[in-house]
Amino acid sequence: MTFTREGFQWTPTTGLQQGLPCEAVIQPPEIIEKPRQVFDVLIIGAGYTGLTAARDLTTAGFKTLMLESRDRVGGRTWTSHVDGYPFEMGGTWVHWFQPHVYRELSRYGMKSELVHCPDYSKKKNHFTFVTKHGRRDMSHEEEQELTARALGKFVDIDGNRGKTVMPFPFNSGWNKVILKFAHMSVADRVEQIKHQLSEEERHAIEAVVLVCSGGTRENSAFLDFLRWWAASNHDYETFMDSVMVFKLKCGQSAFALKFLHESLQTGNLSYSFNTVVSHVDSSGDSAEVRTNDGRQFFAKRIISTIPLNVLTKVHFNPPLDPSKVEASTLKHVNQCVKVHAEVKDPEMRSWSGITYPNNKLLLGAGDGTTPSGNTHIVFFGCEQNHLQPDENVEETLQAIKEFTPMDVERLVFHNWSKDEFAEGAWVWYRPGMEVKYLDALRRRQGGVLFANSDWAEGGWRSFIDGAIQSGTEAALIIKDELQPKKLNSRI
Amino acid sequence: MTFTREGFQWTPTTGLQQGLPCEAVIQPPEIIEKPRQVFDVLIIGAGYTGLTAARDLTTAGFKTLMLESRDRVGGRTWTSHVDGYPFEMGGTWVHWFQPHVYRELSRYGMKSELVHCPDYSKKKNHFTFVTKHGRRDMSHEEEQELTARALGKFVDIDGNRGKTVMPFPFNSGWNKVILKFAHMSVADRVEQIKHQLSEEERHAIEAVVLVCSGGTRENSAFLDFLRWWAASNHDYETFMDSVMVFKLKCGQSAFALKFLHESLQTGNLSYSFNTVVSHVDSSGDSAEVRTNDGRQFFAKRIISTIPLNVLTKVHFNPPLDPSKVEASTLKHVNQCVKVHAEVKDPEMRSWSGITYPNNKLLLGAGDGTTPSGNTHIVFFGCEQNHLQPDENVEETLQAIKEFTPMDVERLVFHNWSKDEFAEGAWVWYRPGMEVKYLDALRRRQGGVLFANSDWAEGGWRSFIDGAIQSGTEAALIIKDELQPKKLNSRI
Repeated sequence: MTFTREGFQWTPTTGLQQGLPCEAVIQPPEIIEKPRQVFDVLIIGAGYTGLTAARDLTTAGFKTLMLESRDRVGGRTWTSHVDGYPFEMGGTWVHWFQPHVYRELSRYGMKSELVHCPDYSKKKNHFTFVTKHGRRDMSHEEEQELTARALGKFVDIDGNRGKTVMPFPFNSGWNKVILKFAHMSVADRVEQIKHQLSEEERHAIEAVVLVCSGGTRENSAFLDFLRWWAASNHDYETFMDSVMVFKLKCGQSAFALKFLHESLQTGNLSYSFNTVVSHVDSSGDSAEVRTNDGRQFFAKRIISTIPLNVLTKVHFNPPLDPSKVEASTLKHVNQCVKVHAEVKDPEMRSWSGITYPNNKLLLGAGDGTTPSGNTHIVFFGCEQNHLQPDENVEETLQAIKEFTPMDVERLVFHNWSKDEFAEGAWVWYRPGMEVKYLDALRRRQGGVLFANSDWAEGGWRSFIDGAIQSGTEAALIIKDELQPKKLNSRI
Repeated sequence: MTFTREGFQWTPTTGLQQGLPCEAVIQPPEIIEKPRQVFDVLIIGAGYTGLTAARDLTTAGFKTLMLESRDRVGGRTWTSHVDGYPFEMGGTWVHWFQPHVYRELSRYGMKSELVHCPDYSKKKNHFTFVTKHGRRDMSHEEEQELTARALGKFVDIDGNRGKTVMPFPFNSGWNKVILKFAHMSVADRVEQIKHQLSEEERHAIEAVVLVCSGGTRENSAFLDFLRWWAASNHDYETFMDSVMVFKLKCGQSAFALKFLHESLQTGNLSYSFNTVVSHVDSSGDSAEVRTNDGRQFFAKRIISTIPLNVLTKVHFNPPLDPSKVEASTLKHVNQCVKVHAEVKDPEMRSWSGITYPNNKLLLGAGDGTTPSGNTHIVFFGCEQNHLQPDENVEETLQAIKEFTPMDVERLVFHNWSKDEFAEGAWVWYRPGMEVKYLDALRRRQGGVLFANSDWAEGGWRSFIDGAIQSGTEAALIIKDELQPKKLNSRI
């Protein structure tokens, strides 16, 4: 097993250690065929967007160079197998209602890798709800009833759970009435319906929505939540099933590697990891890309998959569209904290809980059982009460124990807030950003295409699904442009 | 506009005419580059399965020959534009929860082609329910409440709307408890729950399920319905939205042509329409295909997309697996009757109705408004009380008027029961067929792959989605086999 320099692990005996086992680290880290050639396409980034574009372009016969800052594929999604158990450090859950990711899982014969994460067959089969009013254990049925009722009120802007105002999740502006809600924050929406909400309902809404946004009540756009909801056919159970129920037994990295291997088999893919792009110059006939270590590469087309929050770290010539710069400087809000805990009690497998608003972690849920019989619980925090787990393990353990007493044998996590190549997790816009910047973020600049789940034109923007969609679309555009037209038909 | 010899149109002035305008008819009907070459792949059939496989293989550089019996692409899905209005003669509705079809719609930039068929804004905004106990008009809310309640009972085999017994729609045998239901017919299931059902509920179940199956109460498997339901996340509203709500403004044929055009642009696709395959011989080094008009073609691999009900019409050597022959001889049950009526009253746009069990058409629903302001209503019948609309227009008009009086200005339809290349509509198995034959139907025989939505390994088997999935999978298998391995990495 190879190791990545990313991620952290803590155990009581070893203390905190940086770097984790990861099959997504590619050896050798660089294979470049004729580095001085003008490649057909140069792809910046080997996350799902870049991997999908590389796969589609190399299999169509285009000479493609993929440059990646990290030592691994997958971007904001990667798996670490620790003692035989796959911990998902970023993107995790998928569903067959997410068309682009599921099409690929199906195509790669991985449908049977899906496992159902909640398992309510063990003894500690309940939900712990800690608010400033105290602590209450309830059954999962009660939990679901409460959350469904609360979120139902949150999204019900039209008497039809949002379905009238946003019937097409992939085109959230289809009904112009939506513009009334474009500048609304989560806090604004809660304020609007506060008289309809019990204290418990309000806490449930805010905790669940902040786990989705990774931001604060004030800086998280309501519209992003409505889109997730619409993508789930405006239904609570479908929503939960789509976002936090099914993960891959083999781990996401095994899936990501499928794209890489299919690309490599064509003989058309060159790549270099640990390669930070500093300059993209598309002012000439062919585009030029320079790296931090002083190398230069040339290509007819560039696909930049650089995430929103770090887009301005690269120097573009001609310069980035001012709207792109503005959006990237503002940044999206998602500072999600995701911490995996391995706890000794196998009965905790059926447990979940929320502590809000006074804890540094908001939500925890039994997500699996390790080979040694421990329970894997995944915890989430957000920008509100932000936690840096690598800076303070004690505080992290304390936040975990706020939910309910448990014996933590291991912590595993990636601090996405400090990740220099992402500066945050999946995209969640500030109020007003979507209507103001989305078109600009999607716009190509000459030979440079900008593709990322952060501005995908789909219901599942911000998901792995949106990344695969973005890579698919960018590859098709370039294929149409570069492909010699051999139309052997008059039609 | 080109014309196909398929389909029928009737108006009071012209009477019944065979053949309809159809952009899916390809001109010229044949372009074969070097007919004596050994093609990489020969694809039998230009439905969505064949088109998808052709697209994936030609774009990957493989020389592909596609042979099609009909004069058009699309198989059991095609559109006729009559006076500027797209009538869908077969497959029609799609949804973003159908991953394979939606991935392609998204990739081809066609997401905004989706239109919402029900429109409850006109005056005749009600549902007519005619049973042997009489006629009742109700609101669409009452209709939905009745149907949701009735279907909820029908699928509730586990106290969890089927979700415990069939959690994974794409793997219906995942929970072996399902085997208890494998031999159950729709009639059996209704019998099992008859004491829980009102007469209205029973009529609603049978009518809706028979529109789905196209068969009879006795010959339609319960399991097929449960899979559709599971694919819709075990939810009534999602189910309806997925199967009968969203169609393409431009028509399905415009979508099908995208695959063909992308294939043609590569220069790797040869094709011949009006070409009926009679023999497939894969006993030698390369496979040989003979046609009814005495031509021979050779290829390294064959993809047969011949539907279940007509599979034995082609002579295979080595012979077809006996299980394949048995299944094809038994046939699936779907003898769906689909008749489009253009009616004079624009207010009928908001109407829908069921007449069951005494009418030859079971269900009708306003589906669009024609450019001349008429309402397009789509009607469905099944094998029970089977109707041959081309043989008796008067009987067809009479069946339509059984719902409610209307002034029919035009009928448009395709008689799938008499279609020699399909002998039925989308697949719906007899009780027991799925567990007995599905594995065998999917099995390749040497260089011949069998790909069709009729046995797709997905939640949306029998849908366009399953066809695209099947073509995708077959193409990948062949690509992996034929592609020279140029792995430029030691990983």
